Amino acid sequence: MDGDIRMEFNFKHKINGQDLIIAIAQDYKSLQVLMVAYMNKEALIKTLKTKKVHYWSTSRNSLWLKGESSNNFQYLKEILVDCDMDSVLLKVKQVGGACHMGYNSCFFRRIDTGKIAEKSYNLDDMSDEDLNIILDKVFNPDDAY
Amino acid sequence: MDGDIRMEFNFKHKINGQDLIIAIAQDYKSLQVLMVAYMNKEALIKTLKTKKVHYWSTSRNSLWLKGESSNNFQYLKEILVDCDMDSVLLKVKQVGGACHMGYNSCFFRRIDTGKIAEKSYNLDDMSDEDLNIILDKVFNPDDAY
Repeated sequence: MDGDIRMEFNFKHKINGQDLIIAIAQDYKSLQVLMVAYMNKEALIKTLKTKKVHYWSTSRNSLWLKGESSNNFQYLKEILVDCDMDSVLLKVKQVGGACHMGYNSCFFRRIDTGKIAEKSYNLDDMSDEDLNIILDKVFNPDDAY
Repeated sequence: MDGDIRMEFNFKHKINGQDLIIAIAQDYKSLQVLMVAYMNKEALIKTLKTKKVHYWSTSRNSLWLKGESSNNFQYLKEILVDCDMDSVLLKVKQVGGACHMGYNSCFFRRIDTGKIAEKSYNLDDMSDEDLNIILDKVFNPDDAY
C-alpha cells in the first residue's frame, strides 16, 4: 500500500468482457444499505447525467436502469468514491423498495451467528432458522415485476 | 426474477480462481459505510468464528484479516445477507479507521456532479477539484503500515 491517491476510475472487476466498478446504494436519509451491484462506464455516466441510478446487469449482460420494470427508481443525491476508485457509494432516494422480493433493502435477512456456531459453521447446511427476516415487505413483488 | 428465496451462499464472483461474495462493512452505530471487499468461504467462516472480519485480498491473493498490519480490526456485530446470497453486509465496530489512507471510511471523497456536468462527463479527465475530500483523517497511515 502506498500514499498515492487515485484520481481515475478503475473498472477493474471483469465479468463477461465488461469492465466494472462495485456500486453500493444507501438511503440518503436513513443510511440503510439497500443493495450492491456493478456499473460499467456507461452506467456510471448515465447515472451522473440523469440522476437516476443505472447499473450493469451481469445476469442479463445489459445496461439496467434501476426501476425500469418496477418503477422503483433510485434518485441520486450524492456519490462518493473509495480510495482505489474501483467502487462508489450512491446516496439515493429510493422509490418503493430496492429489493425485487418486496423489501426496502436486499439485506433483509440476518444470520443467526449463535445457531451457525452450533452447526460448526457448516454454511452448506443453512435453514430458514439460521436466517431471520428482519424487515417487513414494503410492496408486493407480484404487482411490480 | 422470481419469488424463490435463496438459502445457500452463492460465491459467484470469480477472481483468480477464487469463488467470492461481496462484503460491505458498515459502522454498526453511525451506519457510515466503511469499505467494500470480497470474501471467499474461508474468510466468511473465519469471520463468523472469530468475530474479527476477514476478507479475501484479490490483489495479494490471500486471506486477509482486516487489521493484521494496522491493528485496525473490525469486530463483527451483525451480519446480513442479500436476496441472492452473493453479498453480505457486515455491521462492525471499527478500530482506528477502515481506510489505509488514514480515514475512517474508504469513501472519503465526493464527486462534484456539478463540475463533472460542465466537463460533459469526461471521466477520464477528473481533477482533485472534481473530488472533494469530505472526511478528516483519523490516523496517520505512515504509523500504521
